[in-house]
Amino acid sequence: MVSFDDIARAHERIQPQAKRTPVLTSATVDAHTGAKVFFKCENFQRMGAFKFRGAYNALSQLGQEEKQRGVVAFSSGNHAQAIALSGKLLGIKTVIVMPHDAPPVKLEATRGYGAEVVQYTKHEDRETLAGKLAAERKLTLIPPFDHEHIIAGQGTAAKELIEDAGALDVLMVPCGGGGLLSGSSIAAKHLAPSCKVIGVEPAAGDDATQSFVKKRLITIAVPDTIADGARTPSLGKLTFPIVLRYVDDMLTVTDAELTRAMFFLWERMKIIVEPTGALAACAALEKKIDLKGKKVGIVLSGGNVDLRWAAAQINKA
Amino acid sequence: MVSFDDIARAHERIQPQAKRTPVLTSATVDAHTGAKVFFKCENFQRMGAFKFRGAYNALSQLGQEEKQRGVVAFSSGNHAQAIALSGKLLGIKTVIVMPHDAPPVKLEATRGYGAEVVQYTKHEDRETLAGKLAAERKLTLIPPFDHEHIIAGQGTAAKELIEDAGALDVLMVPCGGGGLLSGSSIAAKHLAPSCKVIGVEPAAGDDATQSFVKKRLITIAVPDTIADGARTPSLGKLTFPIVLRYVDDMLTVTDAELTRAMFFLWERMKIIVEPTGALAACAALEKKIDLKGKKVGIVLSGGNVDLRWAAAQINKA
Repeated sequence: MVSFDDIARAHERIQPQAKRTPVLTSATVDAHTGAKVFFKCENFQRMGAFKFRGAYNALSQLGQEEKQRGVVAFSSGNHAQAIALSGKLLGIKTVIVMPHDAPPVKLEATRGYGAEVVQYTKHEDRETLAGKLAAERKLTLIPPFDHEHIIAGQGTAAKELIEDAGALDVLMVPCGGGGLLSGSSIAAKHLAPSCKVIGVEPAAGDDATQSFVKKRLITIAVPDTIADGARTPSLGKLTFPIVLRYVDDMLTVTDAELTRAMFFLWERMKIIVEPTGALAACAALEKKIDLKGKKVGIVLSGGNVDLRWAAAQINKA
Repeated sequence: MVSFDDIARAHERIQPQAKRTPVLTSATVDAHTGAKVFFKCENFQRMGAFKFRGAYNALSQLGQEEKQRGVVAFSSGNHAQAIALSGKLLGIKTVIVMPHDAPPVKLEATRGYGAEVVQYTKHEDRETLAGKLAAERKLTLIPPFDHEHIIAGQGTAAKELIEDAGALDVLMVPCGGGGLLSGSSIAAKHLAPSCKVIGVEPAAGDDATQSFVKKRLITIAVPDTIADGARTPSLGKLTFPIVLRYVDDMLTVTDAELTRAMFFLWERMKIIVEPTGALAACAALEKKIDLKGKKVGIVLSGGNVDLRWAAAQINKA
């Protein structure tokens, strides 16, 4: 089990490299929700998402031999770039397993951080390939969320938010595999014990909500949602028990609602937030929960949006 | 002449309502320029631009009778909304003279702040119309930049930036009519006397650069540039002497360069900055000045971008 002390130590470990991201407020959001809302802007984190916190915390704790041999990770998204950048900063060789048809811009970005990219076709299983690479080259496999050092690292964002905004009544956090949500819940319940912690996931991929309600780990087919960081079939073996213990409720939002929230954040708050990063903000803006009179923290978890994709979304709307 | 004391007093005056906007940094920008760059994010200011500072400072200093009679301003841009919002917050009636074909979204936003909008056709002169309204209704006309209280208010952004980032070697500021630039230069030369102050304007509207070089006030035709906040034919009677006295150099950037810089700020820094707001950042990113080894402040002056317009720009590129 990850403790608050693990998060506090992770925080010390990542501070020389991670940004203490700013906390923004919006008079419009406060008027709309009747709450006082504090947005933790992890879209401004290095490589554009909170994932850097967990990745850097995990890689910096590897033993000397593991560091020399290098690490492998599979991801087409922010975890890949977080591992690649952390490896670059720590002088650790990184191998990232990415799909054959990954967007060239993501391949370039990952290689730009010095990672070796190994691509797989749709006939191959990326976990099997990563496992094979790990065995053959004696690389350490770093999973995207179900790892104590990853969870502790992700918890540092909520720690900073509560330190900067003060004790919260409600903390709302996007949920994919639950690394950010579980880490955030541990930090929140320690620093502000009466704070309600709410996870938000896409309606099309409500596995965590189902698991939370049924109190057993539910696995679904890979969900089809614009929230690409939450296309996870289930919580993890480590994140699920933490969510059960510390999270007070789970909410879901549709892709249409998520798009509307994302546009609001772009146009009115002047910040680029990716679909997954807007999950928690969306639940607040769509009033899925009554926040009147409450002091609310919302984690905006990432901002990696391709401009052409963004333009296409606007044109469609 | 506006003094630093005027700026300090303006700062006290606006603090209850204006945001102390965050200062962002970017490892990518630092690596690219060889400098340590601090971005002052006035795109996060209330109503989305620094203009709120000057407008609120000006309106809050009106006499009791002037406040009761109300104010008039002509603008199709950020000054209109800054006056309208300041009027709302201070309980002062505002009349905004806007073009007949102003975008509905801007009309709505201005009316949303409680302003009365008076529209003019292309056959009318907006200054004449505003003057007529001022005379008929005994309204006080608040000009967009050439006013001591406006200049002092705009100077508060640079004051905050230097307080937060520490003494700078270089301060780079967008320039339209010169309200922001002149206010910023007074603040910078007081707080960090060795700081070089650089104004940046669109190449298509280089009137301030010409005036700076020739040391006399040059007026040009209204320039055609995507930097709509800098479509000013000349500096003002008050801003020009301040620019001459305190500004160290003027630079220009083309619309193509400005678009590239804007996209960089959107995609890489995850912040929505409008074309005019990106002028100073553009000059730094395009290396119009050697910043190697310097500590540099850059004012991002506004973020009011219509999403459909943004999508059209991306599609065109």
